[in-house]
Order: sequence, then C-alpha cells, then structure tokens
Amino acid sequence: MGLDFGTNSCRSLIVDLEDGHELAVCVINYPSGEDGILLDPTDPNVARQNPEDYFSTMEKAVKGALQQARDTSPGFDPASIIGIGIDTTGSSPGPVNRQCIPLGMLPEFKDNLNAKVWLWKDHSSHVEAAQITETAQEMRPEYLAKIGGTYSSEWFWSNILHCKNTSPEVFKAAYSFVEICDYIPAVLSGETRPEKIVRSVCAAGHKAMYNDDWGGLPDREFLAALDPDLENLRDRLYKKAVPSNQLAGRLTPEWAGKLGLKPGIAIAVGALDAHMGAVGAGVKERTLVKILGTSTCDIMVSPKHKGFVDIPGVCGIADGSVLPGYYGIEAGQSAVGDIFLWFVNHLVPDQYGKNLDEKFKNLEIEASKQKPGEHGLLALDWNHGNRNILADVRLSGLLIGQTLHTQAHEIYRALIEATAFGALTIIDRMREYGVAVEEIVNCGGLASKNSFLMQIYADIIDRPMKVSRSDQTPALGAAIFGAVAAGKELSGFSRVEAAQDMMTGIKEVYEPKSKNRQIYQELFRLYGQLHDAFGTREWSGGMHNVMKDLISIRERQRKRP
Amino acid sequence: MGLDFGTNSCRSLIVDLEDGHELAVCVINYPSGEDGILLDPTDPNVARQNPEDYFSTMEKAVKGALQQARDTSPGFDPASIIGIGIDTTGSSPGPVNRQCIPLGMLPEFKDNLNAKVWLWKDHSSHVEAAQITETAQEMRPEYLAKIGGTYSSEWFWSNILHCKNTSPEVFKAAYSFVEICDYIPAVLSGETRPEKIVRSVCAAGHKAMYNDDWGGLPDREFLAALDPDLENLRDRLYKKAVPSNQLAGRLTPEWAGKLGLKPGIAIAVGALDAHMGAVGAGVKERTLVKILGTSTCDIMVSPKHKGFVDIPGVCGIADGSVLPGYYGIEAGQSAVGDIFLWFVNHLVPDQYGKNLDEKFKNLEIEASKQKPGEHGLLALDWNHGNRNILADVRLSGLLIGQTLHTQAHEIYRALIEATAFGALTIIDRMREYGVAVEEIVNCGGLASKNSFLMQIYADIIDRPMKVSRSDQTPALGAAIFGAVAAGKELSGFSRVEAAQDMMTGIKEVYEPKSKNRQIYQELFRLYGQLHDAFGTREWSGGMHNVMKDLISIRERQRKRP
Repeated sequence: MGLDFGTNSCRSLIVDLEDGHELAVCVINYPSGEDGILLDPTDPNVARQNPEDYFSTMEKAVKGALQQARDTSPGFDPASIIGIGIDTTGSSPGPVNRQCIPLGMLPEFKDNLNAKVWLWKDHSSHVEAAQITETAQEMRPEYLAKIGGTYSSEWFWSNILHCKNTSPEVFKAAYSFVEICDYIPAVLSGETRPEKIVRSVCAAGHKAMYNDDWGGLPDREFLAALDPDLENLRDRLYKKAVPSNQLAGRLTPEWAGKLGLKPGIAIAVGALDAHMGAVGAGVKERTLVKILGTSTCDIMVSPKHKGFVDIPGVCGIADGSVLPGYYGIEAGQSAVGDIFLWFVNHLVPDQYGKNLDEKFKNLEIEASKQKPGEHGLLALDWNHGNRNILADVRLSGLLIGQTLHTQAHEIYRALIEATAFGALTIIDRMREYGVAVEEIVNCGGLASKNSFLMQIYADIIDRPMKVSRSDQTPALGAAIFGAVAAGKELSGFSRVEAAQDMMTGIKEVYEPKSKNRQIYQELFRLYGQLHDAFGTREWSGGMHNVMKDLISIRERQRKRP
Repeated sequence: MGLDFGTNSCRSLIVDLEDGHELAVCVINYPSGEDGILLDPTDPNVARQNPEDYFSTMEKAVKGALQQARDTSPGFDPASIIGIGIDTTGSSPGPVNRQCIPLGMLPEFKDNLNAKVWLWKDHSSHVEAAQITETAQEMRPEYLAKIGGTYSSEWFWSNILHCKNTSPEVFKAAYSFVEICDYIPAVLSGETRPEKIVRSVCAAGHKAMYNDDWGGLPDREFLAALDPDLENLRDRLYKKAVPSNQLAGRLTPEWAGKLGLKPGIAIAVGALDAHMGAVGAGVKERTLVKILGTSTCDIMVSPKHKGFVDIPGVCGIADGSVLPGYYGIEAGQSAVGDIFLWFVNHLVPDQYGKNLDEKFKNLEIEASKQKPGEHGLLALDWNHGNRNILADVRLSGLLIGQTLHTQAHEIYRALIEATAFGALTIIDRMREYGVAVEEIVNCGGLASKNSFLMQIYADIIDRPMKVSRSDQTPALGAAIFGAVAAGKELSGFSRVEAAQDMMTGIKEVYEPKSKNRQIYQELFRLYGQLHDAFGTREWSGGMHNVMKDLISIRERQRKRP
C-alpha cells in the first residue's frame, strides 16, 4: 500500500504484487482551512496545515481503498497487505514536544499558525533564507553546491529560523522539528521519541543540507552563526537519515485496528512526493522523470560508484534520495500549470467559454490550428521566479511580439512553449555537466490530461515524451517502497529496481515532429538570448534582433503551406 | 466654415467671427463600405474610400450645420459665411483622368478598388515603400532627412508605385494623382485641369517628399530610378504647393446652390487633419499639440527665420505645412488608443463588464486605486511598430514584470504608461535638437474623454497637460484658414495667429503630481533601457537589472502609505 499526502488531500493506493496492477485507490480531501491549507489573511506568504488532517483523512482513505479492493476483487483480504510506503509534500516541517506531539495539536497552541505544519509553499521565511544562503556562501560553500547555490524560503532551516524570530513562544515549546514525511511513519510505527524517529534522506538531503560527507546536518559552528538556538536544537533533531527501502518501523496494533490492516506490517521510511513519484514513473539511470503540475519537478538518478560533479543551478543532489545506491538529482520550474491558470483566470475573455474548463478547451482548439512561430510571440516562464537553472525568485514574466491582432489563444500557446523552453534549458544544463538524458517519462496532471502541451514539449525538447502508465505515480512509488521494505521473503523484491520493473510502465509516447524542429530551434535560441540577458549578470550584448527575428519567423510560417 | 473629412465621416463647423464661438456642427457618416472604408477580404492591408462619399456627405453636413445655426441663432444668415477651409485624412491620394474625374467614379472602374481613393491607413504598398527608402538612401539622402529617415507604405509615392505594379490598367488610365485635401477644394472652386489644382504644401511636404529647396517634387532622375513611368507622371502632377492661408479658388455657383451658400466665397487651400487640428488647438512656437486618438500626432512649429536642423527619427518637417512662415514639425506614435482597444477586445475577461464601455470603465476604476509602479509592470508601446523616434514598423509589443497575481487592470495601466513614456521619448528627442517644448495642448478623443490617462500623461511627462477648448480642432483649424483666406477685409484677419488668438483656447489643465515624479523617472529610465535595447542596433549592455528594479519599485510602492 502506498499513502500519498499531497497539498490538498490524502490518497491510498493498493497494488497487487502478483502482476503490479493497481487494485484500488481512494482520495480524501483535508478538512481544514482552504482546500486543506491554513491561510493568514494579513500575509499572503503564509501556508500552513493542520497535522490532525493527515490522520483523519488517512483513516478514511485506507478504509475506502480496502473497501474498493473488496468490491472489485472478490477474495481480496486486507491481511494480504504486507507493507506501507509513505510520501508527502515537503519541505513541510512542524514543531513537536518531547513526547512527539505536534504543538499545533495542543490546546495552548490551537489557534497559533506558527505551531502548525509549515507547508512547502509557505514563503514567509524569505529573509531567513537569504541569511542562510549568505552565511553558507561565507562559511560553507559546499553546503550550497548540493542545492544549486541558493537556500530556499520554502525549506526546513528557513522555516525554523523564522519561527524562532517571529514566534519565540512556539520555538521555545518545540523540543524538535519533524518533516511530515518522517512524522507519519513514526506515528504509524509508534515511535514517540523525537531523536529516534527514522528520518528520510530525501527530505534531509534536499531540504535540510544533510550530507554524510560532512557528518549529517550542518555543523554546530555554522548553525551558531545563524542563531545560537539553532546550534542547541541540532542535538534534538537527528544524526542519520536513510533511504526509503529501509524500515521506519512496524504498524502498531492500535493503528492496525483503526485502519483495518494487520499489525506488525512494514512501514517504510518516508520520502517527498516528487521523488517517490519518479520511482513510480520508472526512474532509472539516464531516465528523466518530469512531474508536470502547477509547478514541475525533474528527477534523475546517477549511480554512486560513478562519482558526481555538482551542477550549478540545479536544485538538489542527495545520496539515496530517490533510489538507494544512486545520487538523486532534483530540478524543476517554479510555475508551469500555475502560469496557464493565471492567464486563463485573469486574461481570457468569455468568448472562449463560460468557465475555466471551457476556456482551456477552446484556447487549445484555436491554438492548435496554428503552426509554431505563426503567432510571432515569445515568453519567459518566470511569473513565479526561476527555480532552475537561475535559482532566482526575483525574476518575472515577459511577453514579446504582440501586435494589434494578437489573440488570447496565441499567448496561451506562447506560454506553453515558454515552459517547454524552460524545461529544455534544464536538460541542456544537466547534459553539459555529464548527466545524459536518454529517456523522458512524464507524469502528473498535465502529462495525462494535456496532449496539446505534450506534443509541443516533444517538438521543442526534440525527444519522445513518454507518459507514465500510472496516474498516481507518487502513491505507486510509495507502494513500491512499502513492498521492498517488507523484505524479499514477503514481497518478492529486495531491490527497488526489480519492483519498478514489474509495477511501472509507459502508456503513451508523443514523438517529435521533424517539420517543427528548425522553427523551434530558432525560437529556442531567442528564448536563450532573453533568458541569459534578463536572468544573468554576465550577459552583455544587443537585443535589436529579437523582435525582427520573431516577425521573420511569423511571416515565414504564415506563408508555409 | 470648416469642413473636416475624417476616416469615417464628414463634419461641417460654423464659427462666429465676432467672438470665435462655435455656432453649429453637423457630422454625416460615409455611406460606403465598412464605416466608410472599402475593404478587400483577401488582403487586410487594403483600405480604400469611395470618392463620391465626400460630396454626398458634404452636402448633408453643410446643410445640417446651416439649419442648426438658424435654429439656435435667430437672425443667422447663410450668406454671412465668407470662406471655407478644408482638412482631410492623408496621405489619401486617388487617380483622376484628364478631366479631373476620379477613376473610381467612372463606370469602367466602378468595382476596381485600385481606382478608388487610397486611404491613409492602407498598408498594401510596404514593398514599394522599402524600395523608395532604399533608393533615397543611395541617391537622395536629403529627401529622407525631412521625413525622419524612412518613407512610409501609407504615403503618396508608395501608393502610386503599388498601383502601377499591381493595376497597370488603372495606372495607365490615370492622367494624374490627387490627394483628397487638394481634390475637394478643386471641385468646390470648379477647377477641372489636374495641373492647375492648387496643391497643399502640408500633404506635399510631409507625404510626397516635396520641398522648394530641391525644386518641388523629387527630381526626374530619382523617379526614373524607381520606375520610368513615375518620371513621366511627374509633369502631370504639380510644380508648386502652398500653405492653407492661400486661396484654392472661389465657390462655384453650382456648388453654392447645392450647399446653400453664397457663390464666390473663398475656398482655402486644403491640408491634412492633424495639421489643421494643431492650428485649431492653438499651436504656436514652443507649443506642442498632441492629437490623441487611435494613433497620435504630435505637431509643432518653428519660425523659418530661425533656421532649422533636421531631427533624426522625427517624422516630418515641411515649410508652411501648419502655419505660413513656420516649419511644421510632425511626429507621432503609430498606436495609442488602438493598443488599449486591442487589449480590451482580446484580453479582458467579462468580470470587468459585458461590453467595451463597461470594461474600459471598470479597468480604469481598478487601475486608479493603485500607486504608480505598484503593479510591477513595464510595457513597450510598439504593438503597431514605432513611428517615432525609431521609425521602424518591424518592432512589436513587450510586457515585462507579470507574476501569477497580475490582473488585467494592472496591464491596462502599464499600457497607458507605455504610451506616455513613448510620448516623452519624442519630446526629449525634439528638445535634444533644440526644439523647446514650453506648453503641451492635447486634443482628440482621448484628451477630452479619458481623464485617468491625461493625469498619467501629466505625471510621466512631468508638465501640465492642457486640453483644447474645442472638441473638433481639425474643423476649427479649417474654419480659421477659411477666414484668413477670405481676406482681412471680410474676416478681420490677415494672419492665422490672430485668428487663433480669438478662436482657440484651453478648457482644462492636468497638473503633474510631484509625489509620482521620482517613481515615474525610475520607470522611464527602465523604459529607455528596453527602448534602446530592442529598438536600436547601437545599444549593447546587460538587462539583468530590469526585473529586479521593477520588483524593488513594486515593493517600495506597496509599502508606501
């Protein structure tokens, strides 16, 4: 069984180890806040979650999946479930007391947002993030080399430091801080000593600057330079983090009763959703998994024995964060689906439709009638900053080439193309640093639902775009780890790769169209010029060619039969 | 009486010479085509007019104005009208036969669009325009110096050459070509010999490369280099063009009867609407008149005795084209109101309103709640190319700074600001070349109707924006010339300036707000950076600051109380 704790809901997936098919799935939305997110009306940066939501929804999701399996597979026995894997959003840490109870569940902190779980998309800690980046640049540049050069406001230490700075009462009451991908397995396996919780190397390595090479978490001197209280906290966090093929513990009788499962089954170490999603999409050496949603996550792995150079501007590199024995490489774009949603919500007139779905559909119909470059437009995909390869939140959107005749569907197409150019820029950077991409597997909402976008991606990236067979790759990846953690005797799998072979696959392939290659190469060169000009300090040159080249391309394409 | 022949309608205005007040006005729309424009469904560049429309609508407009004057001013006598001034769009030439009959009115060319009047906004002749510019660059650079460096596809010679190239039968049947600002006075005064038509120096100087310094029209050698048939045409055009204080002729008894006016009254030489509009708005030395509409026209005058240097990138400089004894200087922006109309038509959702008017109104309400720079956006106003100071049609729009929260009214404000920055760029260029702007008078639809825009213009240009008292400055300017051409004995005026003193004025002044000065100066520096980077070959540098500066300005302004 895989349990996937997303931004808005909990999902339970049951996979049949006989043949790898998905037996049942059940999704339950978090009841608190707005779509499960606790907001602060006075500060748009704040995004928190109620820790109780995870447990109330998990119970319903597991029971729902079991019921569904019983309904659709006569003879199905819940006792045949041998292990649970868990993935969550992250970095999403929360404070706990010495008894491992989330402060947000205590009566005295019931209404204090700072005592809740700090959701990955919380941006309140940007000042602290800048302080951490600066301090590391001076004292420990090696820390930054593994995270693409910049520590994010979304991550573990930024959140903790901001909590200390703005809510000293919460910080003081916190015995430790725990990522929810570590906390949920701890609860299920009955661990109530914060220091003993088995921590995920995925969250630790990508979000908390953990690395075995420098002895785990950042050292005391560095933390003291940030804040003496962080130095003191270090011993109450963790010394060691491990991959998800290992056991976090075994299901307690109490939780077994609540969930309707057998006590004592394996609980795998948790991990972040994107990384487990990559596993569920079949990530392996030289395969790039792209998780395409409101933002995107690009995941690759590289065998440890081959060694590795850091890639500037690529978000994260952590040992074992995706597959044991491999470096996990994480990159991504801060906004993809979010850009389209912004555009359709704010700039598409009702002649395209009465609601979002209709507007999207008709934009696509109209945009697909055009040849590449026929709109004469080019955009940068930086409406929410650039995560990779520039790692700079102080960037913004750009649209160039509009005339008095430009229509909404043409801009929509240019925005899709911009995100594809951004994706290609990341692939090119990884290739420059020796990480060859031989296969691209896509998953997430856009991959399975938007064939117009997928074809543009295939054409622009100029490689086949494969789509993962499963629509719920994070939960599937979690289930794979649940099976491996349960041991070969029970599951038949001692290695994640073997489980992936059976359980993952491709359902569709978009082939690049050769007739579009040259035009998109020309447009990508112009994108690169804008990218480097507006995004880097080093670039210097002229821009006089850009509008003229776009007009020439437009004229050429309009004449093309 | 002033007669104003616009793009869509004819307007007749009667002014009382006792005190300068406007006695009556009557507007009649052209009956042919779409809003008076003959279109070609196969070619969006084509825009023609039916020459018959001018005369049928003039008759109604004059009679309507006379009736209105009689109704509102008891004792008014049509015989008290002493002169008629005429302004029209331009360059809007048409072919005529030896008897001065427009070919488009002959049965054999009834359905031939190339035999009609080629309206100013017709863009079919862009290939010929490029040929003329190149030929002049090689042979006669002095011709280009007076028109800002580039010959336009909208102008006289481009149209004639395109007619020759694509409709040889029309060209062959054409004895001569006449601008409508010359043709209408000729008809009213009974002139039927094409060579004898008194031609406007305004149309000739700004649109046909006419200049007394080089003996009038372009020389035979130059025209032969374009096409031998143009050389042959030269003698059937004109030798001399004159300002509008001079007589084109006197009203024939036949037309006097049709219009209900006294035969023999003065018909002034015609001119283009923007130039007469500037006169009606009170143009004088050091006063810039801005005619703000779908596009804008900026008009100034500089006394001949002071001499003059050419201003690179400023559209036109012609002796006497606005006021006799002055150089007329014409610049402008190719799209202003048209950019707003494009945006509202194509990119504003219905939450702002059900129709154009509601959308404009609500965009303005929302946009006016923001402080300058609070939207974090910057745009270039080049959706229809740049007329001045870059004189380059192969440019396009640009928008930078958008986030996932940017709303339509913020972009609307950024577009208005972009057109103001474009206007300021022209003013700065004129000042660099010694043409001081001490006063700015605005007229046209946007000036009298859009106070939100006018205040932004005042703040960005950092000068008081005055609004002309008359809402129909072209017709008023024409009436002024009608009075002066009639002679001092009848009208009391021998000089245009004296007539302007009585008949023109200011009704409203928008003062710049000092609190917005600094922010707009910062934004204008960034506009200048984008302008030079994308618009000039010479610029070289980095763009890394642009998005960051926009974000800093946004943050600063949002915090400002």
